[in-house]
Amino acid sequence: MARINKISGFPEWLPEQKLVEDRVIAKVRKVYESFGFTPIETPAVEALTTLSSKGVIDKEIYAVRRLQGESEEGELGLHFDLTVPLARYVAQHNHALVFPFKRYQLQKVWRGDRPQKGRFREFYQFDIDIIGREELPVSADAEILAVIDRAILAMELGPHVVRINSRKILQGFYSGLGLDEESTRAAITVVDKIDKIGAEGVKNELLKIRLVTNDIAGRIVASAQLKFPPSEIHARIAALGIENSELISGAEELTAILELIPEATRARCLVDFSLARGLAYYTGIICEIGLTGYPEFGTIASGGRYDNLASQFTDQKLPGVGLSIGLTRLMDLVFSANLIPVTAKSPTELVVSVYVETDRKRCNEIADELRELGMPTEVYLKSPKIGKQIEYAESKGARYVLFYDAGTGVIKIKDLKSKEQVEVTSLREWFASRAL
Amino acid sequence: MARINKISGFPEWLPEQKLVEDRVIAKVRKVYESFGFTPIETPAVEALTTLSSKGVIDKEIYAVRRLQGESEEGELGLHFDLTVPLARYVAQHNHALVFPFKRYQLQKVWRGDRPQKGRFREFYQFDIDIIGREELPVSADAEILAVIDRAILAMELGPHVVRINSRKILQGFYSGLGLDEESTRAAITVVDKIDKIGAEGVKNELLKIRLVTNDIAGRIVASAQLKFPPSEIHARIAALGIENSELISGAEELTAILELIPEATRARCLVDFSLARGLAYYTGIICEIGLTGYPEFGTIASGGRYDNLASQFTDQKLPGVGLSIGLTRLMDLVFSANLIPVTAKSPTELVVSVYVETDRKRCNEIADELRELGMPTEVYLKSPKIGKQIEYAESKGARYVLFYDAGTGVIKIKDLKSKEQVEVTSLREWFASRAL
Repeated sequence: MARINKISGFPEWLPEQKLVEDRVIAKVRKVYESFGFTPIETPAVEALTTLSSKGVIDKEIYAVRRLQGESEEGELGLHFDLTVPLARYVAQHNHALVFPFKRYQLQKVWRGDRPQKGRFREFYQFDIDIIGREELPVSADAEILAVIDRAILAMELGPHVVRINSRKILQGFYSGLGLDEESTRAAITVVDKIDKIGAEGVKNELLKIRLVTNDIAGRIVASAQLKFPPSEIHARIAALGIENSELISGAEELTAILELIPEATRARCLVDFSLARGLAYYTGIICEIGLTGYPEFGTIASGGRYDNLASQFTDQKLPGVGLSIGLTRLMDLVFSANLIPVTAKSPTELVVSVYVETDRKRCNEIADELRELGMPTEVYLKSPKIGKQIEYAESKGARYVLFYDAGTGVIKIKDLKSKEQVEVTSLREWFASRAL
Repeated sequence: MARINKISGFPEWLPEQKLVEDRVIAKVRKVYESFGFTPIETPAVEALTTLSSKGVIDKEIYAVRRLQGESEEGELGLHFDLTVPLARYVAQHNHALVFPFKRYQLQKVWRGDRPQKGRFREFYQFDIDIIGREELPVSADAEILAVIDRAILAMELGPHVVRINSRKILQGFYSGLGLDEESTRAAITVVDKIDKIGAEGVKNELLKIRLVTNDIAGRIVASAQLKFPPSEIHARIAALGIENSELISGAEELTAILELIPEATRARCLVDFSLARGLAYYTGIICEIGLTGYPEFGTIASGGRYDNLASQFTDQKLPGVGLSIGLTRLMDLVFSANLIPVTAKSPTELVVSVYVETDRKRCNEIADELRELGMPTEVYLKSPKIGKQIEYAESKGARYVLFYDAGTGVIKIKDLKSKEQVEVTSLREWFASRAL
């Protein structure tokens, strides 16, 4: 007999957990679609040349090969994010798409990382992006912030905070301090680590960068510790004491974006000059969302603005803005911290019990009536003692059990929550008037 | 610049197609859940030992390996169906599941076949099964037939036919003709090919089987050409002129199952003694569903009853019954035969046009009100000529365009279908009374 070895890093939910995940997915999807975003799906695999053309560490990639038989069309690998597939998709189907192209995408991605707590090798990402052709106004940035805030709210995981920054502000500030392009880039990478290595650690690393003096390092670290509401942007920028056009235009752009989002969303935003994100391709706003109650958990969604999505595939300039929800990692938190109660083991709301097998046909018809009304209904598949059937209903998470008496034709429904039982003459009336 | 090579066998839909696929998925899912089936999802990969333990041709399997870095925990492969993962899942999580375990599962599967028309290397299967512990009554077979019929109906692809047979009837008949177990198995495999090689071809191949005489081959071929409604089962079985207890009990079982399903479903059933299905593990009913209008397309869903799901993982006997919809192949037909019109390129129903950027904030608020009412709404991201914005709405498949006049506060909504334009004082009232 084959032993079953759990494959580390490949999470698998129990039915009651999967039901919760599906409900969360449905809520996010509904929000994305309410803004007119369209779903796309790409194959799990891409050509290895596609996956590696953005300078990604090859080590993370899972290669896919036919176990036997030669590979005819180049090497394939499982995608490690949904951004590379999006770039390839947009470049490939360019003429069939309407721009600005607003898409969302929920798919598994795979990374051959060494598994560790909170790190998975297979996990869902739930991405949303707007891709423009040649240009994309800042109204798109505002829309992405509005839709992601709405999506996170819809998940009902408790309060969240939207940390936001602008690559332009960072670049303008550092350049205004006297750093050149290379030193600026190095400084951004260092500042991004402030949550991990602390202010002192950042300062020490900054001092190793060419052109960074003690004074400059101090000013950068001080700025990186600021977290303030959008209304303070101008005052905070002025307090940096730097004259730089990129800094000014970055601040104006960020202000304009935050002006366009709903008041309630803006109230959840915190400008954070330490936010930089490692990925080289962000060029405008940068955003990270976390749950207020779980600061140590880190980011549940992140993203930003990029100037050019698919430069490796097309000459056309495709600027975009988008965010990604790390869904599997988030569900792992949901389950371990019990953020959403995991209760029912099935969608079943009502179980029709069966006294004797000769009643089954009629019981099936009753069940169909209830399904038609919109109530997920099971008919018990055997006809043992009623107690056992009630037990089954309870273990499935069903709220009601229905009893049908073939002799009298009487239907009774028991509410397992209130323990009350009623005689039902019209299923439709019972359904409409049942306690919820 | 990297060239994009289409990877053959890995289909990818355009947004307007994906929207249709998602709608079909939602309909099937709703039917499955209305019967209380619970969703599960398993990783894309299984241990190669798991995948190969059922004697499967290894050639079909895609192996997965980290591109760099050693593999620590044995070799992995992409699953090639959802039955092996289900068997592993049920054996592994046995104690956390409620039996009979009713699950549905929609996931991609991968097969390293040489691609050809209608064959994919990556495709969705949409499976539904009931797994019992030690035993599973025939009420489960009836339920699976009822739910799959309802699911296919929900897809709205035109009339379909449910071809049905019983492994027991075939075995009883062939054994009653004088074949032993081995010859019976060989004959079943041959008869299954009648649609491909014709009656003459089947007869020729049958004659190569040990114990098969000319008379026996003739009677088997004659039976394999029968297709009749469930009401004729007893007469047709009697006409075979064979006394065999397995044949009789198989016929009685099939009759009992067909008695339990809704009248309308039974009317779509055709008993077909040629139906055998290659897979060795079917032991009771066998079922294939096709679209009446597309006989040459073959099967859109198939399955049956099996005695033991997970014998390679557990000592516990886990009998089951289930079917699988070949979703991707079906969607390919849907698109090529235009079974469902592919129209809208987005979920957007209304586009709010923007005259000048200073109106955008108010336009966003109007859009939020409409989303709240349940109407997927986009705000045009720029403010060019209105003609361009209407064009955009049309290209996105939106039905309405909204115009907001900041000077007067007047809102007008144009119906792009009827070309009528109305002035709207209450969005709620307009939404409730709009033409559909």
